[in-house]
Amino acid sequence: MNNDIFTPLVSQIKGNIWTEGLFGLEKENIRVDKNGNLSLTPHPKTFGNKRKHAYVTTDFSESQVEMITPPLPTIKETVGFLETIHDIVSLELEDEYLWPQSIPPVLPDETLIPIARFDDEGKEAEQYREFLANKYGPKNQLFSGIHFNLSFGEKLMEMLYHKSNSVMTFEEFKDEAYLKVTRQMLRLRWLYVLLYGNSPVVDPSMELKCKQSPFTIDKHVIGLSIRNSCYGYQNIGELYPDYSSVQNFQQSIEQMVKDGKLASTKELYSSIRPKFIKDPKHITYVELRFIDIDPLTKAGISEEALHFLHAMAIYGLLSEEPDSFDATAQSHANQYHGYVSLYGLIPNPHANQEEADVWAKAKKHIQHMANLLQDLMVNNESIIKSIDVANKLIKNPKKRKVYEVLDGILQKGYVPFHLEKAKSYLNASQQKSYNFIGLEDMELSTQLLLREAVKRGILFDILDRKENFVRLKQNGNIQYVKQATKTSLDNYASILAMENKQVTKKIVREAGIRVPEGYEYTNAEAAKTDFALFKGKAVVIKPNQTNFGIGITILKENTDETTFFRAVDIAFEHDTSILIEEFIEGKEYRIFVINNEVAGILHRVPANVVGDGNKTIRELVEIKNQDLLRGKGYRTPLEKIQLGEAEAMFLKSQHKTFDDVPANGEVVYLRENSNISTGGDSIDFTDEIPDSYKQIAIKAASALNVKITGLDMMIKDYYQEARPDNYAILELNFNPAIHIHCHPYKGKNRKLNEKLMDALGFKTI
Amino acid sequence: MNNDIFTPLVSQIKGNIWTEGLFGLEKENIRVDKNGNLSLTPHPKTFGNKRKHAYVTTDFSESQVEMITPPLPTIKETVGFLETIHDIVSLELEDEYLWPQSIPPVLPDETLIPIARFDDEGKEAEQYREFLANKYGPKNQLFSGIHFNLSFGEKLMEMLYHKSNSVMTFEEFKDEAYLKVTRQMLRLRWLYVLLYGNSPVVDPSMELKCKQSPFTIDKHVIGLSIRNSCYGYQNIGELYPDYSSVQNFQQSIEQMVKDGKLASTKELYSSIRPKFIKDPKHITYVELRFIDIDPLTKAGISEEALHFLHAMAIYGLLSEEPDSFDATAQSHANQYHGYVSLYGLIPNPHANQEEADVWAKAKKHIQHMANLLQDLMVNNESIIKSIDVANKLIKNPKKRKVYEVLDGILQKGYVPFHLEKAKSYLNASQQKSYNFIGLEDMELSTQLLLREAVKRGILFDILDRKENFVRLKQNGNIQYVKQATKTSLDNYASILAMENKQVTKKIVREAGIRVPEGYEYTNAEAAKTDFALFKGKAVVIKPNQTNFGIGITILKENTDETTFFRAVDIAFEHDTSILIEEFIEGKEYRIFVINNEVAGILHRVPANVVGDGNKTIRELVEIKNQDLLRGKGYRTPLEKIQLGEAEAMFLKSQHKTFDDVPANGEVVYLRENSNISTGGDSIDFTDEIPDSYKQIAIKAASALNVKITGLDMMIKDYYQEARPDNYAILELNFNPAIHIHCHPYKGKNRKLNEKLMDALGFKTI
Repeated sequence: MNNDIFTPLVSQIKGNIWTEGLFGLEKENIRVDKNGNLSLTPHPKTFGNKRKHAYVTTDFSESQVEMITPPLPTIKETVGFLETIHDIVSLELEDEYLWPQSIPPVLPDETLIPIARFDDEGKEAEQYREFLANKYGPKNQLFSGIHFNLSFGEKLMEMLYHKSNSVMTFEEFKDEAYLKVTRQMLRLRWLYVLLYGNSPVVDPSMELKCKQSPFTIDKHVIGLSIRNSCYGYQNIGELYPDYSSVQNFQQSIEQMVKDGKLASTKELYSSIRPKFIKDPKHITYVELRFIDIDPLTKAGISEEALHFLHAMAIYGLLSEEPDSFDATAQSHANQYHGYVSLYGLIPNPHANQEEADVWAKAKKHIQHMANLLQDLMVNNESIIKSIDVANKLIKNPKKRKVYEVLDGILQKGYVPFHLEKAKSYLNASQQKSYNFIGLEDMELSTQLLLREAVKRGILFDILDRKENFVRLKQNGNIQYVKQATKTSLDNYASILAMENKQVTKKIVREAGIRVPEGYEYTNAEAAKTDFALFKGKAVVIKPNQTNFGIGITILKENTDETTFFRAVDIAFEHDTSILIEEFIEGKEYRIFVINNEVAGILHRVPANVVGDGNKTIRELVEIKNQDLLRGKGYRTPLEKIQLGEAEAMFLKSQHKTFDDVPANGEVVYLRENSNISTGGDSIDFTDEIPDSYKQIAIKAASALNVKITGLDMMIKDYYQEARPDNYAILELNFNPAIHIHCHPYKGKNRKLNEKLMDALGFKTI
Repeated sequence: MNNDIFTPLVSQIKGNIWTEGLFGLEKENIRVDKNGNLSLTPHPKTFGNKRKHAYVTTDFSESQVEMITPPLPTIKETVGFLETIHDIVSLELEDEYLWPQSIPPVLPDETLIPIARFDDEGKEAEQYREFLANKYGPKNQLFSGIHFNLSFGEKLMEMLYHKSNSVMTFEEFKDEAYLKVTRQMLRLRWLYVLLYGNSPVVDPSMELKCKQSPFTIDKHVIGLSIRNSCYGYQNIGELYPDYSSVQNFQQSIEQMVKDGKLASTKELYSSIRPKFIKDPKHITYVELRFIDIDPLTKAGISEEALHFLHAMAIYGLLSEEPDSFDATAQSHANQYHGYVSLYGLIPNPHANQEEADVWAKAKKHIQHMANLLQDLMVNNESIIKSIDVANKLIKNPKKRKVYEVLDGILQKGYVPFHLEKAKSYLNASQQKSYNFIGLEDMELSTQLLLREAVKRGILFDILDRKENFVRLKQNGNIQYVKQATKTSLDNYASILAMENKQVTKKIVREAGIRVPEGYEYTNAEAAKTDFALFKGKAVVIKPNQTNFGIGITILKENTDETTFFRAVDIAFEHDTSILIEEFIEGKEYRIFVINNEVAGILHRVPANVVGDGNKTIRELVEIKNQDLLRGKGYRTPLEKIQLGEAEAMFLKSQHKTFDDVPANGEVVYLRENSNISTGGDSIDFTDEIPDSYKQIAIKAASALNVKITGLDMMIKDYYQEARPDNYAILELNFNPAIHIHCHPYKGKNRKLNEKLMDALGFKTI
């Protein structure tokens, strides 16, 4: 090629900066019914307008769901995002599954294949699909796959640009880089297909046509990647764009349109496409389109495969180009790619020498890639591991995933094998319906909110991951949200009022709502002097700051001065200031108020098991801990019950051990405190608590002019309506968790993520 | 009296709880012109509607300003509040003063005395004043004084009630307590007048009339408290309410109205009034009305005098009543009070035995008061000191303040003496125009805001003093404000965006506004690798967290790799993560934006002095520190420049010492950092900075949807209009101080407290 400015840069920059970049995925999955037939139902209404939804739309067919991730800074996040979209879509389908294979499921007659329907402004999109159906046949349009959008890190590009001392502008420099990557990937794409191709078999209802003249029709092909072969989704006739410069590239494909070979430039189905997104004159990223769906992975693609592609792109940029990339060279590359796609599984006995040498060639390239990463001092584990895996697959091609798929198909049949996978993926989606995969380090409340953002087609940025600070955007509405419930809905003064417990009490009390009355003391004498004030009233005497109830005394009668004095002394043993408050009888409920509406009520119960007369406490705990809602380290809605020292101690105080067998129906508590973090249960009471209490909660929130709050209320007996003396408000929390109301131990999902989105003014797009 | 339930309670409760209570003051001051003549101008418009203003109104005359404090928990705060109102009123007068004496200044002819004028709804108030003018004469209505509203602590009353085992309700119990205090104070008020009476002399323009029949007119009386004597402000004829119960009291004064002795119950000018505020059937507090203005104190009343009154009230409650308080007893008490008021300075040679024994009686009561406080184990220093002072005055009556006033009048004349005082008080008010007296422990910004609240007649509560958390109320508008600028105007999400510097930068940058670009590094190697990125650009290399510029290197050229590497290493010596940012040339300005308006711009300069060719640096610092804006411990708008180690070191680096004499006009800096807290100067640039920069600040605030922010901007040269490359925004502060813009070292008061009040929707009432 014209003077290669990139190859010399190998020696200039070292380290993991080489692996920085932005990564996006697009995936198509056919919806099928429970028998594996193409679904004939419309695209799920949940996802609103398919022309506008950022993440979930349809491709050619109404039944061909397309899932799109934004560009993200790591492959792990990108795959997680895709899997999360996949989960969300799966959960919205009714008796349908996402078909986990690039080759279509059982298809009806061509005329029955539903073309994607759009709203009035999408008429052009519909017409284009009808044109495609006519030109290529609708069944052919149902090949599904994955597109990987890849760009190098902006900082890397900037440093390369500086090191190159190029006379080009920075934008031109990047164009050159992406064009080189495009050419090199077109030359090398067969290598990826050789290792990861995975569309080996076709259902007989598909009418396979090889697009290379003379067309052949064959219903019983077995290949490595039929989708990438001449039977797959290709343009009709040979088309060779000019990849020598951005201008030449654009002119060459515009010429194809003028010549009537393409209806429009987007009809060019090349395996790799340079994309012009931010600026029509410059390349933003390259789109790799030759990726088969991996039927063995819920997301349809493994991180490992993408890291390998990323390594190929870096290799492509920095390795020397063998020749110019004219029509002949392109044709040769296409032929080779086609050969590997079809015969990479079962070699063609009539193969030429180059074709027969495919494994040796692969081995050589992978060795070069490994050497390059070493030279660049890249120690990013994932990318290095992807090369190791590639090496293993070359040593033992039978380890390729396609064999497991083929075996499954041979054992169970094409449809049953894939359907079984689809069902198991749906089951997994249901079980982890609270996670945003790839963002599991963020709070569950935020993960739930972002899942809802995806569902509604709301764009978002993660502004500060550790702080759970995100930005949501839809049309003109921009919302900054931290920890799910810190939003623009609340004014700062109200937050500060909630944060200050004494101020909260004062305001709530002035609104005519009961709060525990009491006084703070900084010396024991003053507290004791006040005995007269509290005599005969039920009181709690407690250190101002306390954990786990240490130093707290509850005096329900409080007639004896000596006992009162002792309780004061005990409290002062644990803090320099104490509170004497009236004792409020009842159970504590967390009431989530949003925009003057009670959206969820929860009661928390200390870690416990219920006996069956046979199993030990230890066994009962183990069984209870199997619930997928329970995990460790606050990444699940509930925590596993521990069998630790604290639990042993608490059992001991009840004269029990872990090996005791509780009677049938006996409830055994393993903790005194009801925190979810120590294995407590959350129980939804939203429908049980009478409206009179809800009205009090709403009134308290209004008194502080608060839009979102988690209000803690003591209720003596919720079978009774609220009266002035049978409840009290303890506090209003300005950052209440939402996940506890969405995934309680017992009770309904109160969908607070949906309520939050409604409150923030976001609708389904 | 009927069975006294209070005296036995002496032994029941001990400690300072006895001195808890609520204390309010009302004070009248006549406005006078610069010659000491009654002002004939209208009440200052600043204070809006005098019928509605909570703190500043008029009494009988348009020229008689009445200042009212709310009930507050300490006497110190109450006096401070009153003095602050006094300051605020004084600063609003034009060429007028507040007359610091209960006896009126020079009066014009009766017909020229302006009666207070009200709005349409205040016609009744005007008519009543005209009735009083006719009945008592308008000059007589110009006697001014102080009313002290006093109630005991609610907790104290509750404990007393419990200890008393009374069959009364709690409200009835309190009524009995306040009635007893009223009776006892009526018996004892002479004691206060004896010590603190201070209206000894009358200007000849006043036509003194003794209200006791037969009326006498005398222009040359000298007395201890003419205001409290028969010449003072009293009802015509003898009126003896029935103080035996609330019901009897109310019936007896209603009877006086029926009998035509009073136009309405409020015309009863008794020295002590039980007040029915919260509930028309029960007493809320007692009003002590026999207090003369203290001409020697700016506030017109000393804390000491009020503590003594408070001690008298406690003494009154707990000491035995000598007899019933029928008409005879009341008449006797009135006579004795009248005697002391008139002859407490120069004894009447015709006094009866009881009158002659006044000092012995006083001594006995004060001894009893001291004993009582000891019995009650009260160790509140202020109240105990007030008894000590009383004892000293009894030992040496010439130490009474009235003698200093009398001496002043004799030396300078009645009008000149008081006018000189008035002028000195105005001067003091001007010098400390940033303080809210009694609340000096709060932040200056909050003090300034509360001063403005007083000016506009806005009610406020201090919700949390340490946190500077207040509530403002006017009509239906309730605002919670913390640290002056944390308000309901800002939404929580915007606050969080400002709090997170990276998020702020991102949003501001996206709005097309320049911020310093750069990267964060957690290892030196990565930072060094990036040299190429920064080569040839001016950069700042600094530890992520830094104080006082330690570890920071500025490289204006940055062409040498070795220097760059060294700077990286230095930064890493001070933190585990460092920032490399582009260096922004210029000076830093603090821009205060409120509701899309730039309200103030400030530049801060490190502590410095300007030489005169004669004085040493030490002397120049001492002179500069005399500015009343400079103090210690952040209680003033500026801090005193220290002559400490840091300053000595910094001078040393310039080869200077404190004893060097800078040349005339030479600026010597004593600090590198420009913080106000280390003696820096604040210089107002609001009018100097071109609008182009202001528009950028407003745009940045809008990008974050922020209503109140203190924005830090680097400006290269403010003589130039803003261009894309000659400024940068460093950060947006969500809790900017306002006092620095109100009281800068150089420049105008930008009145941000007024702007805040406007923004919060509060107008002058």
